[in-house]
Amino acid sequence: MINYPGGIKKEPYKGKRQRLVSRNSAANRGMNLEDSINQSNDYYAEINRALILKRPTPINVVKVDYSHGALIKEAYFEKQSTTDYNGIYKGKYIDFEAKSTHLKTSFPLNNITPHQIKHLKGVIHHGGIAFFVIEFEMQQQAFLVDAQYIIDFINANKRKSIPYLDIVKNGLEIKRSYRPALLYLDAVDEVYFNKNI
Amino acid sequence: MINYPGGIKKEPYKGKRQRLVSRNSAANRGMNLEDSINQSNDYYAEINRALILKRPTPINVVKVDYSHGALIKEAYFEKQSTTDYNGIYKGKYIDFEAKSTHLKTSFPLNNITPHQIKHLKGVIHHGGIAFFVIEFEMQQQAFLVDAQYIIDFINANKRKSIPYLDIVKNGLEIKRSYRPALLYLDAVDEVYFNKNI
Repeated sequence: MINYPGGIKKEPYKGKRQRLVSRNSAANRGMNLEDSINQSNDYYAEINRALILKRPTPINVVKVDYSHGALIKEAYFEKQSTTDYNGIYKGKYIDFEAKSTHLKTSFPLNNITPHQIKHLKGVIHHGGIAFFVIEFEMQQQAFLVDAQYIIDFINANKRKSIPYLDIVKNGLEIKRSYRPALLYLDAVDEVYFNKNI
Repeated sequence: MINYPGGIKKEPYKGKRQRLVSRNSAANRGMNLEDSINQSNDYYAEINRALILKRPTPINVVKVDYSHGALIKEAYFEKQSTTDYNGIYKGKYIDFEAKSTHLKTSFPLNNITPHQIKHLKGVIHHGGIAFFVIEFEMQQQAFLVDAQYIIDFINANKRKSIPYLDIVKNGLEIKRSYRPALLYLDAVDEVYFNKNI
């Protein structure tokens, strides 16, 4: 069993029926977006469907006390200058950023950094799959939104947020289940592999 | 200019001639393997050849003082449970681990973890390119060694190290230059894209 950092406690596989039944999604309501994705990634790795991992948070270590092993005494969180997740699926390089908003009618763009946009442009340039997972907490909905759409929106608009209805129209809602909490690879199949689920 | 964490100070591009002349490699002798790869990755990103990054070191944060911003007061280094580097090159997912040894006649296997082997097996399973960069400090030589070779060696042998001569025979020596310090994508071209440089 793969036990990647950031993963959550594993539960035994309970068979296809339970895994796909969405009424279990109530169990996931308390789980935040990051935990949902981490749990889904652990699950996808277990069933050998994909290998996608969260990048560790970069931390700038200033002072280390070596008197008892290596104890970090002073350090600072750095902003991730790329995206949160990357990996491989069906031979393709996958790269995405997950963002959540508590706003009801729009997704604010100010928490996407220019570094992240530059990084995702690079991914697209090299032939990878690049997207955002955008969650509207109020609606309890998460969407896969192609990175190129976000890049084009930023270039074309002076707006500082994307209306919820634009996300609904241009993104694809990600189904939820018990395990994986977010069936986001089904959305990837539909958007990037032209496969209807 | 992309300024990824772990990157080193950028120097201006000095033209093809200087970049390819290997007598400049003396300038890199003081650079350790990780710095060489990071500098090479920065360079490859700048010229849009590939997008390959070092995963940040995972750190387990225990205590944070929020009185002046977020100052980490107690934290511990965690072992990277995957590999050091991944990214995209020519549409392909690339994943590798870099290891250096001061031994002259063999590369000890005890610093490759079972997690890393499991991870690289997964990369191969999903159609990615997986390898090790192994440096012999004494010889000042670095080799690209396909991950499958290492996996097979571990499975077939009771030896706890791979002889230097086996690495020479089964790996491909990576040329050095000024920028990039390690021309490791040329080795990737030769091994995985059947392209003679």
